[in-house]
Amino acid sequence: MLDTTLTDQTQEFLDQFGAALARGDIDAVREMFVEDCYWRDLVTFTWNIKTMEGRDQVADMLKARLDEVKPSHWTLLEDELPTEEGGIVTAWITFETDVARGFGLLRLKDGKIWTLLTTMQELKGHEEPKGFDRPMGAEHGADKDRTTWQEERAREAAELGYKTQPHTVIIGGGQGGIALGARLRQLGVPTIIVEKNDRPGDSWRKRYKSLCLHDPVWYDHLPYIKFPENWPVFSPKDKIGDWLEMYTKVMELNYWTRSEAKSAKFDEATGEWTIVVDRDGEEVILKPKHLVMATGMSGKMNKPDFPGADQFKGEIQHSSEHPGPDAYTGKKVVVIGSNNSAHDICAALWEHDADVTMVQRSSTHIVKSDSLMDVGLGDLYSEKAVRNGVTTEKADMIFASLPYKILHEFQIPVYEEIAKRDADFYKGLEDAGFQHDWGDDGSGLFMKYLRRGSGYYIDVGASQLVIDGKVKLVNGQMKEFTETGVRLEDGTELEADLVVLATGYGSMNGWVADLMGQDMADMVGKVWGLGSDTTKDPGPWEGEQRNMWKPTQQPNLWFHGGNLHQSRHYSLYLALQLKAREAGLPTPVYGLQPVHHLS
Amino acid sequence: MLDTTLTDQTQEFLDQFGAALARGDIDAVREMFVEDCYWRDLVTFTWNIKTMEGRDQVADMLKARLDEVKPSHWTLLEDELPTEEGGIVTAWITFETDVARGFGLLRLKDGKIWTLLTTMQELKGHEEPKGFDRPMGAEHGADKDRTTWQEERAREAAELGYKTQPHTVIIGGGQGGIALGARLRQLGVPTIIVEKNDRPGDSWRKRYKSLCLHDPVWYDHLPYIKFPENWPVFSPKDKIGDWLEMYTKVMELNYWTRSEAKSAKFDEATGEWTIVVDRDGEEVILKPKHLVMATGMSGKMNKPDFPGADQFKGEIQHSSEHPGPDAYTGKKVVVIGSNNSAHDICAALWEHDADVTMVQRSSTHIVKSDSLMDVGLGDLYSEKAVRNGVTTEKADMIFASLPYKILHEFQIPVYEEIAKRDADFYKGLEDAGFQHDWGDDGSGLFMKYLRRGSGYYIDVGASQLVIDGKVKLVNGQMKEFTETGVRLEDGTELEADLVVLATGYGSMNGWVADLMGQDMADMVGKVWGLGSDTTKDPGPWEGEQRNMWKPTQQPNLWFHGGNLHQSRHYSLYLALQLKAREAGLPTPVYGLQPVHHLS
Repeated sequence: MLDTTLTDQTQEFLDQFGAALARGDIDAVREMFVEDCYWRDLVTFTWNIKTMEGRDQVADMLKARLDEVKPSHWTLLEDELPTEEGGIVTAWITFETDVARGFGLLRLKDGKIWTLLTTMQELKGHEEPKGFDRPMGAEHGADKDRTTWQEERAREAAELGYKTQPHTVIIGGGQGGIALGARLRQLGVPTIIVEKNDRPGDSWRKRYKSLCLHDPVWYDHLPYIKFPENWPVFSPKDKIGDWLEMYTKVMELNYWTRSEAKSAKFDEATGEWTIVVDRDGEEVILKPKHLVMATGMSGKMNKPDFPGADQFKGEIQHSSEHPGPDAYTGKKVVVIGSNNSAHDICAALWEHDADVTMVQRSSTHIVKSDSLMDVGLGDLYSEKAVRNGVTTEKADMIFASLPYKILHEFQIPVYEEIAKRDADFYKGLEDAGFQHDWGDDGSGLFMKYLRRGSGYYIDVGASQLVIDGKVKLVNGQMKEFTETGVRLEDGTELEADLVVLATGYGSMNGWVADLMGQDMADMVGKVWGLGSDTTKDPGPWEGEQRNMWKPTQQPNLWFHGGNLHQSRHYSLYLALQLKAREAGLPTPVYGLQPVHHLS
Repeated sequence: MLDTTLTDQTQEFLDQFGAALARGDIDAVREMFVEDCYWRDLVTFTWNIKTMEGRDQVADMLKARLDEVKPSHWTLLEDELPTEEGGIVTAWITFETDVARGFGLLRLKDGKIWTLLTTMQELKGHEEPKGFDRPMGAEHGADKDRTTWQEERAREAAELGYKTQPHTVIIGGGQGGIALGARLRQLGVPTIIVEKNDRPGDSWRKRYKSLCLHDPVWYDHLPYIKFPENWPVFSPKDKIGDWLEMYTKVMELNYWTRSEAKSAKFDEATGEWTIVVDRDGEEVILKPKHLVMATGMSGKMNKPDFPGADQFKGEIQHSSEHPGPDAYTGKKVVVIGSNNSAHDICAALWEHDADVTMVQRSSTHIVKSDSLMDVGLGDLYSEKAVRNGVTTEKADMIFASLPYKILHEFQIPVYEEIAKRDADFYKGLEDAGFQHDWGDDGSGLFMKYLRRGSGYYIDVGASQLVIDGKVKLVNGQMKEFTETGVRLEDGTELEADLVVLATGYGSMNGWVADLMGQDMADMVGKVWGLGSDTTKDPGPWEGEQRNMWKPTQQPNLWFHGGNLHQSRHYSLYLALQLKAREAGLPTPVYGLQPVHHLS
């Protein structure tokens, strides 16, 4: 009976909320939020990805947008009734705007809104053809002019980019480009994905051979086709490569392999890009309306230009260029860096009997994979979660509903628990001289990922090699190459046949500089980071990932990427923004982000 | 409250049933069935696919098998409580045997069992690694001897069939071989699939170009990976080909393309086959324990040897050899036959401006595709069914639970409804001179499929061409080829540049004759059909598809195939039978089918 009351009360609150919105009574709406409230909107109210923090920001946004958005039909999800825990009522909701249908998650504290997530799910009149509306495939009846599916696909593939122009070009055909391409195809937005490799999935296949995904399968699903229940927890790189390749094929993406964008220019007058593409040796000019950079937040390598490289007689590789350990048995290898790639590469080299030294330049955060799975992700992304009814879709929504501003508060206890659980492990690292940190505020791995996209290792075995001294550890800054190895700033010399620079990756606007010039890169500014004013994530506070999946200062230029979770989840909102523009809907952006940093 | 009572009552019945079985009281068990009862067992009690009809057959089976089977734990499925309709209580159940876990469907009439379906779901100790037990993928920790997934796959592919022998060889890599191969892989049974074509899916790709699946998507799922919700209702042939190709790859099947079995011999003493395979020009000898023929119930063409073929100046093709209409614009084509392929080929030729005549040799049953979907399949395999909670897995079980002996009684009203619904359509066919029937007993398409695998067309548009006279219709028997066409038995001469023999396919034991000799083909006997004593399905009554998915008179030789529904559903039971043998479990077959017909 309690639940019924809670349901009734929550629906009543929603009714009042909806009514206040409907009559444009922003003061009343404002009063329905607690003081320290958060309203995260994914495209429905703002045509942006934006968190309104506090009552004033909520009211400001509504003043600007309410008349046009015309929200309505605020309803509790039928299958999933509200729950109450620790004084917080949580409710799944649906609603509509003038042009779209939305889905959301509401948390009430003391009868008022504490957090509100509103997400766009589909545009009215532009729904994806699925379920009852899926295509027929066979056209029944006989018709002298009809063509087959195969002929249509072949014609489209031959004409798009030549006779007809795509609406959107995605540069980069990794998981991000593929997931977005799949959604755009379903939405009927003509799209070409430009990928430099030979085959979809090669961006995984080409990396070091022992690589497996560090995130578990429940976190990694693509849209539309889930991994089957026998899929490994941590996909080996070649297996995920094969999956991406098959996905690209069966989702019928226009995916140009062995293709590279050479330059891109935007014509403000026509609202059109001119992109010069080298397609397997042939120059093709593409003229899309929109350009999405999906080259990967780990796409553009940061390969420092240390002095002395000329005289060094061995090999120098960036971690992304490292082919794996096979050729280095019995060789001396120095790996500069101590994050994910550095650790994985060191372990694989040790397994192949190389003599490996890791040079740690600054402190790194390490979490054991199984602890991260159990303590960090278990409630949302695990077999247990699935059995508890927390599907990947639901987990994505719960995750998206936690405001970035306070996310670290939820994360700190997770890492406190891990510190206790794995106390011996961290003691071992300390004893081995490894500089370890938990993030500036102790909030651990995921916040580091969101803030700076680096500074951590998910331990799948390499740390024990460091603890045991099997992978040698040296702390220090690399100064220069010598003839036979490297010299650190403290004068330490390390002999090496191979030096691997696991020195990370730059901001994605570096790709813009290459392709469109430094001016445009500077206009767009830094990509990624929240503005948390922690290490490598300078403020001011933005409250969302800078420039990701939302309009940028450069009209018609977008950024997409991140891990498989983000590629899956945010591709929906980016696809809907592009579809709205393709369909000619008004899309006034509220709160377009300013630029504070150039890289 | 009523439901609770029903649930309690049904569980109480199950408890009594289980107790009687447990104490070996076969008389008591017998009394718990109504007189005209049916117990369909898929492998759990019989190590066979077998329907016991009537109390005596139930009692006989139990006398032979109960001691060894040791059934227990008869329980109602938790999520799916019993229902009552028209005096019939329907209940989903689970149970165990000594070696396996089972799933079933029970129907009670007057408090006794009317129908009972018992199906094996997994062998204890040989469960598939999925869900909580899925593989890890990454092996955490560092190990100097470890290999990657890619290396393991490459090694397996290189060694299987050469250094190591498969337990099972599947001849034929269409949907049947692929679905079975996927299940065997998950069960850890080393298997090679031998396929003559270049790529998985070519058995569909190579057929006439306008072909789409005639069954809808909900009926067509493969195990493990479902079609996404945007997949077309009726898959175009090339699209289903691509799906099968990607499935074969991501399910990691050992699939030998461009390979053909040349001969197969069984050594009774060693229990081993010797199969000579031409693998893309290389002769390979395979020595598996088990051999599965999955060459397709529509695999071996029946191409009658009409006189005069030598003098005919045009082309002669079996329907399976017909490349599609493109080359025949403006040509005269005679199609001999009036079933599915004949209709589809005629329509495509008409669309390409050929002059087409269909020669109907005997009456054919036609159902309009949309009527079949709505009236025939809608409750089990449709978007509506899915929304009502009838998943494809559940639909398969419901379908499997209807005893073949009385299945026609359920089907007759369906076709009576269709006859009314489409009365104008059938009148049109009659007026056009088309000989139409509804099956010997009016039970329509699906019974024709089960009994004889032929004699029908699912209309996707060709019938209107016949009605309108755009495809010309001639009734008669082909006598011989002439120099310029064909002559029928009544003397009618038809001019033709191309004659397509849409004359169907032979019994699958024809493949056995080719590969293992006529003696073995005769020992196995006819494959397919129920023994219904209707046209082309001579008795005596077998009550299951002859020789399909179950032990045959030739030890270690099996047949697998049928439509996508059957390939999906029955591959499970065949895979479990093979796994049990691979694991060395005793598998005494109850009621091995006798041979009554040689083809």
